[in-house]
Amino acid sequence: MEIKLNKLLTKNKSLILTYDHGLEHGPAEFNLRNIDTDYILNIALKGRFSAVALQSGLAEKYFHNYRKKIPLIVKLNGKTNISQVEPVSRQICSVKRAVKLGADAVGYTIYLGSDFENVMFSEFGKIAEEAHDFRIPVIAWMYPRGKGIGNDRSTEILAYAARAGLELGADFVKVAYNHDAEGGPKKENKDTLQCTAEVMKAGAAGLAVGRSVWQHEEPLKMAAALKRIVFENKSVNEAMKALK
Amino acid sequence: MEIKLNKLLTKNKSLILTYDHGLEHGPAEFNLRNIDTDYILNIALKGRFSAVALQSGLAEKYFHNYRKKIPLIVKLNGKTNISQVEPVSRQICSVKRAVKLGADAVGYTIYLGSDFENVMFSEFGKIAEEAHDFRIPVIAWMYPRGKGIGNDRSTEILAYAARAGLELGADFVKVAYNHDAEGGPKKENKDTLQCTAEVMKAGAAGLAVGRSVWQHEEPLKMAAALKRIVFENKSVNEAMKALK
Amino acid sequence: MEIKLNKLLTKNKSLILTYDHGLEHGPAEFNLRNIDTDYILNIALKGRFSAVALQSGLAEKYFHNYRKKIPLIVKLNGKTNISQVEPVSRQICSVKRAVKLGADAVGYTIYLGSDFENVMFSEFGKIAEEAHDFRIPVIAWMYPRGKGIGNDRSTEILAYAARAGLELGADFVKVAYNHDAEGGPKKENKDTLQCTAEVMKAGAAGLAVGRSVWQHEEPLKMAAALKRIVFENKSVNEAMKALK
Amino acid sequence: MEIKLNKLLTKNKSLILTYDHGLEHGPAEFNLRNIDTDYILNIALKGRFSAVALQSGLAEKYFHNYRKKIPLIVKLNGKTNISQVEPVSRQICSVKRAVKLGADAVGYTIYLGSDFENVMFSEFGKIAEEAHDFRIPVIAWMYPRGKGIGNDRSTEILAYAARAGLELGADFVKVAYNHDAEGGPKKENKDTLQCTAEVMKAGAAGLAVGRSVWQHEEPLKMAAALKRIVFENKSVNEAMKALK
Amino acid sequence: MEIKLNKLLTKNKSLILTYDHGLEHGPAEFNLRNIDTDYILNIALKGRFSAVALQSGLAEKYFHNYRKKIPLIVKLNGKTNISQVEPVSRQICSVKRAVKLGADAVGYTIYLGSDFENVMFSEFGKIAEEAHDFRIPVIAWMYPRGKGIGNDRSTEILAYAARAGLELGADFVKVAYNHDAEGGPKKENKDTLQCTAEVMKAGAAGLAVGRSVWQHEEPLKMAAALKRIVFENKSVNEAMKALK
Repeated sequence: MEIKLNKLLTKNKSLILTYDHGLEHGPAEFNLRNIDTDYILNIALKGRFSAVALQSGLAEKYFHNYRKKIPLIVKLNGKTNISQVEPVSRQICSVKRAVKLGADAVGYTIYLGSDFENVMFSEFGKIAEEAHDFRIPVIAWMYPRGKGIGNDRSTEILAYAARAGLELGADFVKVAYNHDAEGGPKKENKDTLQCTAEVMKAGAAGLAVGRSVWQHEEPLKMAAALKRIVFENKSVNEAMKALK
Repeated sequence: MEIKLNKLLTKNKSLILTYDHGLEHGPAEFNLRNIDTDYILNIALKGRFSAVALQSGLAEKYFHNYRKKIPLIVKLNGKTNISQVEPVSRQICSVKRAVKLGADAVGYTIYLGSDFENVMFSEFGKIAEEAHDFRIPVIAWMYPRGKGIGNDRSTEILAYAARAGLELGADFVKVAYNHDAEGGPKKENKDTLQCTAEVMKAGAAGLAVGRSVWQHEEPLKMAAALKRIVFENKSVNEAMKALK
Repeated sequence: MEIKLNKLLTKNKSLILTYDHGLEHGPAEFNLRNIDTDYILNIALKGRFSAVALQSGLAEKYFHNYRKKIPLIVKLNGKTNISQVEPVSRQICSVKRAVKLGADAVGYTIYLGSDFENVMFSEFGKIAEEAHDFRIPVIAWMYPRGKGIGNDRSTEILAYAARAGLELGADFVKVAYNHDAEGGPKKENKDTLQCTAEVMKAGAAGLAVGRSVWQHEEPLKMAAALKRIVFENKSVNEAMKALK
Repeated sequence: MEIKLNKLLTKNKSLILTYDHGLEHGPAEFNLRNIDTDYILNIALKGRFSAVALQSGLAEKYFHNYRKKIPLIVKLNGKTNISQVEPVSRQICSVKRAVKLGADAVGYTIYLGSDFENVMFSEFGKIAEEAHDFRIPVIAWMYPRGKGIGNDRSTEILAYAARAGLELGADFVKVAYNHDAEGGPKKENKDTLQCTAEVMKAGAAGLAVGRSVWQHEEPLKMAAALKRIVFENKSVNEAMKALK
Repeated sequence: MEIKLNKLLTKNKSLILTYDHGLEHGPAEFNLRNIDTDYILNIALKGRFSAVALQSGLAEKYFHNYRKKIPLIVKLNGKTNISQVEPVSRQICSVKRAVKLGADAVGYTIYLGSDFENVMFSEFGKIAEEAHDFRIPVIAWMYPRGKGIGNDRSTEILAYAARAGLELGADFVKVAYNHDAEGGPKKENKDTLQCTAEVMKAGAAGLAVGRSVWQHEEPLKMAAALKRIVFENKSVNEAMKALK
């Protein structure tokens, strides 16, 4: 039973545009352009991203015009950043509903090491089984988090996160990069590209990018620069030329 | 699969009469007239409100005479204001039952930022899926609440609430207005209309009103005044004339 | 879809004999006569009570001889009075099982204001839906209880309890009477009848009585006295004559 | 719908051999003979006990050779004695599985008064319904336990336990005897028989015995002595003769 | 209904290669060879182990080439070692999914004595029922753990763990050996073999080994040495010859 990974891959690499910040961080990071999902979907389409990752609510309201034009990843869980209890993110959207909405893959966040890790492991297992019955891949956002964890960007803990995702049945695992390519606030262009090059050299199958692209004044140029590194194995300097 | 939003809209705007205060606040706010659900339904009918929002118990006992005359929103969860634990409101009525009772839409309250946010997100996701299978819209009452939140009327937190509702799959989102049009005790007529005008100018699709109308000595006049602003884009002064 | 309320009503009033004390309080209040469920069922039968309320265990073991002779209310939840945590009473008997046992109605206790209020609201909603599918009524025992509540016999809180029962979908609501007709230990006959008269004058649809009847030395005479007030609208003095 | 009680009764009395100590107390109480389930089942067979009570694991591995020769009670829940939290024992084996394993009855332990009483009440209710659909009886092990209870062997609390079992739908209720026939460590023969006589005189339908029999050097003689009291209503002195 | 135990047995003994350390301990214990599941599966194949134990994620991605060549045990639950709450490991993979992945047996870890023991007992019971319906055996990893336990390697507590596994319905029980054959870091060869001999002499049905083999510089030689003891009842000295 083959899982359809190819839709998310170009030359076996992937560059995914994530746009789940509205739920996870609130709209404070948006401006009047990028608060609009259509703006994001246009970047994904014209920038030829490997896929775009959205919550089910956005997919349902905005994605129908882009169906079959951009591969879609539906995030199945999410939480706000308000409550300060041990982190737990529960399933909001079923795999079946995601598939109806046009998903080519589903995503799920696991807060590894949280007191509620077991709740997320249990939900993830059922999701992996159901998604694979639909032959679509599952992407695990593996984030070490909770009071049992000190420095959650140590190489040791990030390696643990990646391995746990594999053992749990994920087809792709998203972890932070501890030189911080994504995750913090948007950076200078060169820093972003430098990190991307390092990540790819470290053996990653690709990148998930968000604010670095859609907060950029010229998102399509940034997309072009990133793709030179991810898909064409170009140097940072060559990639920088795409920004001019 | 089109969701039937039109039943709740007039010229793309909506004025909803809410009457869930008996469960949420207790009957202390009622008098001998407005404690009677028939009194409220008559206001909704004669005042031509876009819809009336009731708990399932009231819908089951009182709504049959108004079926197909007033659009109905069944609130699917609710809680009393007695317990002081982190707020959580669980599903009381299934979508299927709401539809049987004549619902044109269903409503659900989420206490964003509560320690039990994940419980409500999870229930809401299933409700959205099921309601949309019935092609009826879901209205999310998004209330930031809980010990993780200081000032729950800041513009930042209200914007977060609205955005979260969208990402979770709501078709309409009800948030508080931080100049306090609804939510506090009944106000002077002019204040109410002033707020309504501000809210509409801010881009809202409409208003949910409760006590401002059914605690009013002449609810139908108040309804007429509100409708001038919401549907006809009239000034506050012109709306005030409806009250004479 | 009509709910069958008539089985529990005589002239639109109801006098229900409750016998759930064995689980809720323990058998300390029983004597060698009234510890026997047959004794109670005989009082219900000969005293022509509107219905008798039992837990499923008693209904299953004792009710078959009285089937179709006395209307039966099966209490679906219950708890002991031993544990001192926030009160929670979970469903023990399904609606389907209650119907098999001969129930003409089902009962469920909600501890309004308890930290676990949401658990009971959620169970109650499903019970109301299922019972109404069987066309049988649901009686809500609405008891304000828990650390968030000071004086749980204030008129305000009892009114809240009654209203909440209505909003949640109950067909009958049982609340305490704050001049204490039922709930405390058995009283003098005249006190009991005085309270009954007050309750009926206050507009109640009837009464649920327990110890006042089955701890009485002549339960059938007490039943006769109560019925004069509840069904025949007689004075306390006239009712007292039934006790001689 | 008749429940098949007769399989567990002789002259309307019952003497049950329990062997659930391996899970509840650990194997420290076993020796090299009685650690073997076959040894126990042989005692049950040759001693003509009314039934033997086992966890599903032992029933599955050892009972097939004794099927239809000894009535079987499958215990559906259990816990170790290690954890010191409020006692809770959850269902391990379904009624359906117990029936497949040859059960003529199922057993379930309820820790009355524990903070988790509601969890066990809820599970027990479903078990009673399902078992009675199979027409097999349910035996409730009713043990008052938890921080809300001081002296858990008072007559008042034991009576409460027995009554609660009845109200919840048990067909047999096992409670401790407060002169301590069973429950503590094995005693002198005469003490055991004395207690048994008292218990039967107090009106019990029978006894569940464990260590008094299978830790006895001559279990079949002890069984014979017990049976003289339980089934033949003999005196302690007459019963003692069976031990010689 | 016979359970298929034979696939895991040679001369009624078993030597299982476990590789669940990536999830339970993190990848810190791996090197560049043994981080690769193919390396492990080759050891299992060429070393003719009785079975290999993997999480579902590894089984799904790596096992298809080894199907029907090595018996497979799918571990159904797991947790990281990060969170410091009372240990709980919840089901990640269903029995049905394990069977689809080629499992000849399923494994489940129970933290005996944990405050969440009841959660794992309840899951384990359903797993045992379902696995036995598929006629495949269940292996219980019985680990005493939690704040109620002091020295979790005492003979008494290990015996309790083994017994509890039996009572719960396990077909094989894995417990620690309190002279520490497995569980700690890799040891000197002779120590490992010495322990193995002791364990077999103590009556074990076999061993589960992990790091002692796959962290060994010559895993197949170590496998050969172990097999001489487990299957051929050879002395430690004779087994040592296989290492040369």
